[in-house]
Amino acid sequence: MTDRVIPARAPAGAPGDPAIEPSVRILPLGGLGEIGLNMMLLESGEDLLAVDCGLMFPDDEMPGVDYVIPDFSPLLARREQVRGVILTHAHEDHIGALPYLLRELDVPVYGPRMALALAGERLREHGLQDRARMVAVEPRRAFDVGGFRVEPLRVTHSVADGLGYGIETPVGTIVHTGDFKFDPNPIDGERADYHRLAELGERGVLCLMADSTNVDRAGTTPSEHEVGRALTDRVRRAPGRVIVATFASHVHRIQQILDLAVTFGRKVALLGRSMETSVRLAAEQGYLRVPEGVLLPLEELSALPAYRQVIISTGSQGEPNSALALMAAAEHKYLRVTEGDLVILSARIIPGHERTVMRVVNQLLRQGAEVLWDGVAFVHVSGHASQDELRLMLNLVRPQFFVPVHGEYRHLLAHRRLAQEVGVPAEHIFVVEDGQGIELTKTSARLRERVPLQRVLVDGKGVGDVGPVVLRDRQLLAEEGMVVVAVTVDRATGAVVAGPEIVSRGWVYEREAEAVLEDARAAVREALAERGETPLGREALVALLRGTVRRFITQRYDRKPVVLPVVLEV
Amino acid sequence: MTDRVIPARAPAGAPGDPAIEPSVRILPLGGLGEIGLNMMLLESGEDLLAVDCGLMFPDDEMPGVDYVIPDFSPLLARREQVRGVILTHAHEDHIGALPYLLRELDVPVYGPRMALALAGERLREHGLQDRARMVAVEPRRAFDVGGFRVEPLRVTHSVADGLGYGIETPVGTIVHTGDFKFDPNPIDGERADYHRLAELGERGVLCLMADSTNVDRAGTTPSEHEVGRALTDRVRRAPGRVIVATFASHVHRIQQILDLAVTFGRKVALLGRSMETSVRLAAEQGYLRVPEGVLLPLEELSALPAYRQVIISTGSQGEPNSALALMAAAEHKYLRVTEGDLVILSARIIPGHERTVMRVVNQLLRQGAEVLWDGVAFVHVSGHASQDELRLMLNLVRPQFFVPVHGEYRHLLAHRRLAQEVGVPAEHIFVVEDGQGIELTKTSARLRERVPLQRVLVDGKGVGDVGPVVLRDRQLLAEEGMVVVAVTVDRATGAVVAGPEIVSRGWVYEREAEAVLEDARAAVREALAERGETPLGREALVALLRGTVRRFITQRYDRKPVVLPVVLEV
Repeated sequence: MTDRVIPARAPAGAPGDPAIEPSVRILPLGGLGEIGLNMMLLESGEDLLAVDCGLMFPDDEMPGVDYVIPDFSPLLARREQVRGVILTHAHEDHIGALPYLLRELDVPVYGPRMALALAGERLREHGLQDRARMVAVEPRRAFDVGGFRVEPLRVTHSVADGLGYGIETPVGTIVHTGDFKFDPNPIDGERADYHRLAELGERGVLCLMADSTNVDRAGTTPSEHEVGRALTDRVRRAPGRVIVATFASHVHRIQQILDLAVTFGRKVALLGRSMETSVRLAAEQGYLRVPEGVLLPLEELSALPAYRQVIISTGSQGEPNSALALMAAAEHKYLRVTEGDLVILSARIIPGHERTVMRVVNQLLRQGAEVLWDGVAFVHVSGHASQDELRLMLNLVRPQFFVPVHGEYRHLLAHRRLAQEVGVPAEHIFVVEDGQGIELTKTSARLRERVPLQRVLVDGKGVGDVGPVVLRDRQLLAEEGMVVVAVTVDRATGAVVAGPEIVSRGWVYEREAEAVLEDARAAVREALAERGETPLGREALVALLRGTVRRFITQRYDRKPVVLPVVLEV
Repeated sequence: MTDRVIPARAPAGAPGDPAIEPSVRILPLGGLGEIGLNMMLLESGEDLLAVDCGLMFPDDEMPGVDYVIPDFSPLLARREQVRGVILTHAHEDHIGALPYLLRELDVPVYGPRMALALAGERLREHGLQDRARMVAVEPRRAFDVGGFRVEPLRVTHSVADGLGYGIETPVGTIVHTGDFKFDPNPIDGERADYHRLAELGERGVLCLMADSTNVDRAGTTPSEHEVGRALTDRVRRAPGRVIVATFASHVHRIQQILDLAVTFGRKVALLGRSMETSVRLAAEQGYLRVPEGVLLPLEELSALPAYRQVIISTGSQGEPNSALALMAAAEHKYLRVTEGDLVILSARIIPGHERTVMRVVNQLLRQGAEVLWDGVAFVHVSGHASQDELRLMLNLVRPQFFVPVHGEYRHLLAHRRLAQEVGVPAEHIFVVEDGQGIELTKTSARLRERVPLQRVLVDGKGVGDVGPVVLRDRQLLAEEGMVVVAVTVDRATGAVVAGPEIVSRGWVYEREAEAVLEDARAAVREALAERGETPLGREALVALLRGTVRRFITQRYDRKPVVLPVVLEV
């Protein structure tokens, strides 16, 4: 990891001699170029500090994988110098990989109470709750982590207690926004800290790292209050039961639904384990005011007339086995959706989930419910800043250097254009992706040599042991199925003394399988017989078995299942 | 398939005695409730007539499947009475399953020339070109198919030569719109036949079946000309090469790109086999005017300066191995995307393809190209009618009964609401899904008993032999991988004389696989040893092998691969 100036992507300013001039380095480990999980590493002298430690859920090309977590190797290579992790907010893509980091590294974790509470749940599942040192932080109460002085800054987002950070370093202040929007009238009254951001901007900020998620959206993201008003209007007119599916972590949305239930004399039941956990923790931590008596267990709620019932459920992405998916499939143990029900999917449809969500919508409609979702009705607002808010952030902080974060490459590029429009010089903006570090001095910034990072896959107890080859095998197996052809040979003579036995999965239709497998066995017997008495070597035998079965299947089916020959010796 | 009135969904009008009163029946075989493939069956006395015969491409839950085709069993059960198939237009979801029907059933196929030309290509691939009886039809030139008098009606759509049909039956006229929009100024000047639709409406239409795809969109779908103007503007300002990815079948889009290339003194190369085929056929059939000398082979185009090059390519959905995906991955044999290139994805992003398309977008941006796609720029218009056009269709045709077609259940429901708004009585509107037939008399309509339909999957040469069990096996294999454990036993004594041999795929990381497999073998040997001298029966042995390997893997990895025991006998 030697530093060098990369001439192709010219540096900004005139970097001094790094051996003499103090510098700070930032290295994105997740969230830049490929969204899904977020982690950023800051380095000043002997001190390393991580911002966030998130996980992502796998896509279709990672069958069987539970999670993807960041590659921690840049931290593990300098484990003695890692001073801590600071968390911005309670979303999985910012906190979910903490247990995997903390089992490797014993470092303190700083963050807002809600994020620490949810992270604590995860740590308990991993048996790490006793080891972890969790430190709750408050807006404007700065604290020291190694050589960094860190000041939490209130931001608004689709989660309670969201923070950005102002990080004082030897070369200047770095501002990291976390995920944010400027909600002019947030549910909890906790406005983003315009004043402190302005003050930092006035004093001078070396580098801003800002959320790029909604950079394609013109204007301003509506206030969370507006979706509350829209939902109120819908519930007012609802003749029967109201079922709202939303993200369990969206405490402000849940607050509004609880409040409007009270307004209309309805009671509320919670469905889904993560919903119950989130509501419990948020209430305990004081982020959610649960009006007296509004929450009921499902069985008590069901005893009320339909027009007095509200259900808040998980499953807004159509996740199989979620409460909503089970209701949609009429497979929920205690609930049947009926005519007169109003189902509201009060959430964004995450790209890749459209078909699943629409399947759930169709199923609910077939059962006679009215269904509203983002796209046909105003039932959700984003938690991320649109263009006007991004401009405001840039103008308040007016950084010397700008690094767009949290976005696909296309978002980062668009954020660069936006920053140029508000006056940040092009050569002071760094569009970098995960693994591409940047070195900052008081007056300059330059790219470092790129660090190769892996995607670390978690599958069951295995962390990182499922690699590209295993995934390719899984996809092959999925697309074509597999066939095992086994024989036993005499160790002395090489003659086949038992088999061929053939078994398969995912290849042919079960009803005709037996006849087909018998034909395949016959083909192998024939191929063996054709080779006559001369026994084959093991490799030749394996090749003959594989080749014969493959040919048989290709000719008859034009398919290419994975063929696995097994040779036993007696 | 006995008829009966289903009381729960009350019939409209007062149906007469079906034994005396003549009736016509319609039975949707595809496209209603689940979009993807389209086929509708009409039945009058002894005559069966099919409208369209489409295929769909599988989703993620059908690994390895090539296509899904309709369940032809209602036709095959009455094969002598099938009088023909009429095609509405050249899209795969309307014509793609023809080869599979025609190899079962020798019936004439009527359709517009462009659809017949493309269907002919498919039939040739299946060796059916000589058997098929293809009859080209023209708008307003009615023809007889059995007892039906069929009149083609010009409609506009995102394909050349789109048709709807007016079908005279003994009980009245049925109008099927096909896929349509009312483009006020279509590229080929062929407006939808407002006049004939009005005339039919004036005379009286028994039943309308109309495209529901865009029922969620307010207003009017813009004219194809508008996207042409927008593209012209983009190309005018493009400093270098222009690459446009679009659907091969979108002849009018291609026409506009050819024309604007001429306007700006550029030449055009086509990329992708389906693009070449479509352009060739459309030019041969007179649907595409290829300006003299504008088309060049890629190698000749590449010799020109970048600002004189236009490439029209397939791959607008990010399909792997498509020309565009290869360019994006910098793996195309002859083309490198560079700074200064403008890439336009002039197509809708089909739901489910967002991630793949965005990956391609990011890759192209990384190579320095400017990239435009539907969502950040106006580069595409739909071929389907929006709400105002759907209202116009209902008002022109003013049918006695209305059956929304071509849509998911949610679209069909929304189309019902729309029809009610323009005055169609609720009880005259039938929201039905595939398999749910309707019987029409001159004055009444009622539901028939529902016909159970299968999804027929095509995998290689196999049609219908991949069923739910095979798919479930494939998904299991994909998510967990598989492990084979094989032993050889002495037939006489039952003693294990060879093995255990263990092989696996998609389970563990290859580098550590050998040690793990050896541990697994040891576990099996131990389990066998524990059973002592008493030989096990075959079933007990299989259970022991499976159980031991499963336990081993669960304990060590918390995974559940498919375990396949194989027992050979000597």
